Amino acid sequence: MSPRTAGVRDERGARTLLSRIAEPYDDRIQQLVAEHGVADLVGYAERDGRTPEGVSLERLSSRLIRSRHIDDEQVCRALGLRVLVPGDEEWPEQLHELAAPPWCLWARGPLRLDEVAERGVAVVGARASSAYGDEVAARLGADLVERGFPVVSGAAYGIDAAAHRGALVVDGDTVAVLAGGVDVPYPRANTELLARIGRDGAVVSETPPGGAPARMRFLARNRLIAALSVGTVVVEAGLRSGARTTARAARDLGRHLMAVPGPVTSVMSAGCHEEIRMGASLVTDAAEVVELVGRMGIDLAPVKRGASRDEDDLDPESKRVWQWLRPRRSASVDELMVRSGLGLGEVLSALSDLEERHMAEQLLDGWKRTQR
Amino acid sequence: MSPRTAGVRDERGARTLLSRIAEPYDDRIQQLVAEHGVADLVGYAERDGRTPEGVSLERLSSRLIRSRHIDDEQVCRALGLRVLVPGDEEWPEQLHELAAPPWCLWARGPLRLDEVAERGVAVVGARASSAYGDEVAARLGADLVERGFPVVSGAAYGIDAAAHRGALVVDGDTVAVLAGGVDVPYPRANTELLARIGRDGAVVSETPPGGAPARMRFLARNRLIAALSVGTVVVEAGLRSGARTTARAARDLGRHLMAVPGPVTSVMSAGCHEEIRMGASLVTDAAEVVELVGRMGIDLAPVKRGASRDEDDLDPESKRVWQWLRPRRSASVDELMVRSGLGLGEVLSALSDLEERHMAEQLLDGWKRTQR
Repeated sequence: MSPRTAGVRDERGARTLLSRIAEPYDDRIQQLVAEHGVADLVGYAERDGRTPEGVSLERLSSRLIRSRHIDDEQVCRALGLRVLVPGDEEWPEQLHELAAPPWCLWARGPLRLDEVAERGVAVVGARASSAYGDEVAARLGADLVERGFPVVSGAAYGIDAAAHRGALVVDGDTVAVLAGGVDVPYPRANTELLARIGRDGAVVSETPPGGAPARMRFLARNRLIAALSVGTVVVEAGLRSGARTTARAARDLGRHLMAVPGPVTSVMSAGCHEEIRMGASLVTDAAEVVELVGRMGIDLAPVKRGASRDEDDLDPESKRVWQWLRPRRSASVDELMVRSGLGLGEVLSALSDLEERHMAEQLLDGWKRTQR
Repeated sequence: MSPRTAGVRDERGARTLLSRIAEPYDDRIQQLVAEHGVADLVGYAERDGRTPEGVSLERLSSRLIRSRHIDDEQVCRALGLRVLVPGDEEWPEQLHELAAPPWCLWARGPLRLDEVAERGVAVVGARASSAYGDEVAARLGADLVERGFPVVSGAAYGIDAAAHRGALVVDGDTVAVLAGGVDVPYPRANTELLARIGRDGAVVSETPPGGAPARMRFLARNRLIAALSVGTVVVEAGLRSGARTTARAARDLGRHLMAVPGPVTSVMSAGCHEEIRMGASLVTDAAEVVELVGRMGIDLAPVKRGASRDEDDLDPESKRVWQWLRPRRSASVDELMVRSGLGLGEVLSALSDLEERHMAEQLLDGWKRTQR
């Protein structure tokens, strides 16, 4: 797209410009868009500063002056991004179920967002998570992608990051939905994580490149996480956690809302327990999530029986190692040490225990879980 | 009751005798009782060994020979027991909601069982409980009785014992329903606990004095726990835990069924999570239990808010001590050391912390929780 004469932008150009000058959670703007359409509204703002009916569009003016000459095609090329607008093949139609759909989506990474929205599962939770929450989120992330369900989350500290990492550990599909621009790694500490997700999965935002992750944008972002997935799982959340706004959005959208329980003595699980008491489904593992969000009769979770899970008999170290073994991909002892946080001796003794139980086997390039 | 001529027993005598010679879970006997009534059936067994229709009552004979001359009045006097039968003022009418009601109840202790059945809450769970489960059960037991709800349980190791002990710590009402006779302390290790419950609360069984706690009797006992309470809370239970038979009985009786969640990584909470997934209400504390079982509009639990609980800000030691402080009864430092499992220095520093926060105050005879 080359710079254009003001007022003759196509829908794509109008929407990307609008994403720079107005927030989708601004009710007044949503109403004007509903009345005039994006292209006309942006045209009125650029040409006349008012609608034909005489409604002032001044509120858009200051940001318009700074943004109207930005060449988005060039920005996208330079940053390796793409812009999605309604009508694009990759545009997730599900976004129109939102009261305030985004004007457009800025995206980076190989995953197709329309496909993600058909099968993705949001795994979200507290930033100040516990070790328990991180472990559960990572396990859930890994097990969901292994069952073919991409993991959607917000790349925040704590549960979000653990869920993404779990998915990546088994080379699975994962999508980070950001509050700021997709080129603004936030939080900083997750820069490498976001780089990896941008390379192998997708990083998405409705905020234009360079946009700051402002507080209101976090709350608005949470509705996108809910809308881009068929169900949302809250892993840990305090009573006033932001993750509960994602839960509310999922409920409002009629998506499956699930929560993982935890100790009643932990404040980090109190929000999850409240969600379950308010109607969310209690889930304890990926199989139970898939039972709810999966295709009826195909992905059904097996009924749990007292004696069915061999891993219940394992000592804690063996269990820990076993949880990081994958059926279709081998892991080296070094890798298992890093992932499990155990020492060399502990990992080796766990592997030998697992081998004896026919729960793990050694290949040329490492260890994998035995399929049964 | 003096020894009587065979075949002319009154209803009470017939029922106590029947409790010695036939198990209530014996369907064939329940059917004969439904046809003839207890007094006539026992009369036929003693006189003729058959019903007027010629149905053999031989199955009752061997135990009848051993039991017919026992003087139950004398037994009750000697052991400090009472026998309850339908029609007695203290007989809990709710027992008739059972498919197989007990023939009679043997009881010991000052609590009236008809009153217990109107307000009691069953707190049950695994024998092989975790420290987490024990803590939650004890807290629940204490908080329920402080709200005026007697705690009904089975005096087993683990959750049952913790629930009874929690109730006793605050001098609350608690009822132990046993599988064997009320004069047979089982498990042995809980002999003192049962003595205390028999002195201050009630120990109950449908099994006659001296009766062994046989396996089938445990399963049958669980239905009595459910029937003698307005709701059942499962605190910890493995997938195949016996506590789940109590849960099933509560569900079958249309009573409130509740379960306490725990870490999904703990097999001891797996049965609780399954119960919640099957429809049991998730509860995290006594207030939420009372919200379900209490009188509508009177005992309602306050809505949880993020910032409402001062105890969330406490360090673990202060919280532990605070949990054992009561608003209406003072506790000595020694007592708090024993209950909290903390050392003298830790308890004193916790108390000074709590005093500063206006959450505890010192009286002449010890410490109590500050009312707000």
